[in-house]
Amino acid sequence: MTKKPDVIVTEVALRDGSHAVAHQYTIEQVVAVTEALNEAKVPYIEVTHGDGLGGSSLQFGMSKVRDIDLIKAAADVADYSKISVLLLPGVGTVQDLKEAVEAGAKMVRVATHVTEADVSREHIQVGKKLGLEVVGFLMMAHMASPEVIVEQAKLMESYGADVVYVTDSAGAMVPDQVRERVAALKENLSIPIGFHAHNNLGLAVGNSLVAIEAGATYIDGSIRALGGGAGNTQTEVLIAVLEKMGIETGVDLYKIMDTAEDIVAPLLPKPQEITRDSLTLGYAGVYSAFLLHAQRAARQFNLESRDILIKLGEIGVVGGQEDMIYDMAAKMANEK
Amino acid sequence: MTKKPDVIVTEVALRDGSHAVAHQYTIEQVVAVTEALNEAKVPYIEVTHGDGLGGSSLQFGMSKVRDIDLIKAAADVADYSKISVLLLPGVGTVQDLKEAVEAGAKMVRVATHVTEADVSREHIQVGKKLGLEVVGFLMMAHMASPEVIVEQAKLMESYGADVVYVTDSAGAMVPDQVRERVAALKENLSIPIGFHAHNNLGLAVGNSLVAIEAGATYIDGSIRALGGGAGNTQTEVLIAVLEKMGIETGVDLYKIMDTAEDIVAPLLPKPQEITRDSLTLGYAGVYSAFLLHAQRAARQFNLESRDILIKLGEIGVVGGQEDMIYDMAAKMANEK
Repeated sequence: MTKKPDVIVTEVALRDGSHAVAHQYTIEQVVAVTEALNEAKVPYIEVTHGDGLGGSSLQFGMSKVRDIDLIKAAADVADYSKISVLLLPGVGTVQDLKEAVEAGAKMVRVATHVTEADVSREHIQVGKKLGLEVVGFLMMAHMASPEVIVEQAKLMESYGADVVYVTDSAGAMVPDQVRERVAALKENLSIPIGFHAHNNLGLAVGNSLVAIEAGATYIDGSIRALGGGAGNTQTEVLIAVLEKMGIETGVDLYKIMDTAEDIVAPLLPKPQEITRDSLTLGYAGVYSAFLLHAQRAARQFNLESRDILIKLGEIGVVGGQEDMIYDMAAKMANEK
Repeated sequence: MTKKPDVIVTEVALRDGSHAVAHQYTIEQVVAVTEALNEAKVPYIEVTHGDGLGGSSLQFGMSKVRDIDLIKAAADVADYSKISVLLLPGVGTVQDLKEAVEAGAKMVRVATHVTEADVSREHIQVGKKLGLEVVGFLMMAHMASPEVIVEQAKLMESYGADVVYVTDSAGAMVPDQVRERVAALKENLSIPIGFHAHNNLGLAVGNSLVAIEAGATYIDGSIRALGGGAGNTQTEVLIAVLEKMGIETGVDLYKIMDTAEDIVAPLLPKPQEITRDSLTLGYAGVYSAFLLHAQRAARQFNLESRDILIKLGEIGVVGGQEDMIYDMAAKMANEK
């Protein structure tokens, strides 16, 4: 890198992209992708189960290879890029984090629902003690007002987080929602702000630009868009656009384009299109995992699954409240 | 429609999307798609060879079914939607246009390179005489400054155009380029402004929102993104986003989503991903047709095809100047 980058990219194809391959990454695949990303000078590469350390489970889907082995394999070949891990308190443990550090992780991103930052305290503090860079990751950020996000992000900052992210987990934000949330954090925090998008509304790249304009300096990308829902911000596309705009990332454009085409595209079981289902999730603003339940409830109560999902978005159901989907569908059917 | 729409959508899957199916649309396919779009209350549906009336040729690719038969088939089943046709002066003729009107077309979009609006005069005037709504379509709009576009658009307005479009044919514009071009037209013309995007930089939906914010009221979409390069603005996604933002289109969201999933998706020979090639076109800002020549020239002169395309974008080569690609590559090889 000849100068300090304006925007620091974290590549999530080996973490959020894990959803897209049903958590079946092999050591060989992780090594091939990491080597190529390292060569392209991507600053951070996240390697973890889609739901973070400890995510491999019947509930979230079993990994083919243990996280710790994938992290070690990636860290062993990355002499430029730093390996990041995702941790959701309650899913991943302090012990998982210690093992990840031993395997070579240099950054942890501690993720909570946007209104639950208080549960991130211990893991952020342990991460700092272990010498990691620590990122606070506020998920489903469309569900909280800018004021609430500021309050929650300040908690993470007070625990020691080095960066806080606005995370559009449901790919549900329109540009103004991104702008006002990032700008509010920028104004009220003294640490850098990040933004993580999904492409359910076709706005992943556009919203990332809006976030940068509003002051975000950390942006997540996923090569070939590999990720949950309709996928994430396509890294090589983002790099090309930023280069056109004169915004420095330090990433080698040709190498990242080639990595996408020659190494990552062949791994995809299916392309990351915006389908009816992924669009519905973004439109309704709900977690991917609710889709299946909404479809079941729709059959049971003779409703349209999209109506259920939209209602779920309106009342703000969050992960763990799946039973409510059926109760709500019953109520909707009665009202009809 | 309960109220006047804020944004008027023209669906181009049966025209720009014709590129994506190598111009092999059948009558049955056109009827099925048109019926569904008509049912979803899409205001305009464009039905023509990808390169417009008369486009069926060895140079541009032969259509499976004559345009005129496809237009008639669509017009016969569209009792709500109006059928539009594209015409590039020099490719399509006045006679083609007359036949299209007899077949049921209600709108013509007369398309020229962004600096060549003067060649649109005759066809705009004939279109008006034939009782059509007439749109001026300024292609490759990234290649001209806002001032030049205003000048060119004013010519089209003076010939009688009812609407003028900023057309990002190469999918090469970043948001500020869209904003300044649309705003300049809005300020200097008295007719409505339109915007047509390609998704080569992942910005089709985002740029369409920027165009609307800057004053555009006509927006092109293509269901399931079906179109040249990485495809167009995905119609059903745009409708969902605008609905979230409270911007009225009059289009039925569920019906357009279902049309995309159940009727259009099965027609695609391959999904509309952003590949290395389509990203390169957007990054370089050049016509799709140049890709093949750049690849050939790269092999011949031992260069990187992307470098050639980027150089072509810089010097502003336009359609018809394909020979220059080889001359330029020879020069680049000498300089190396």
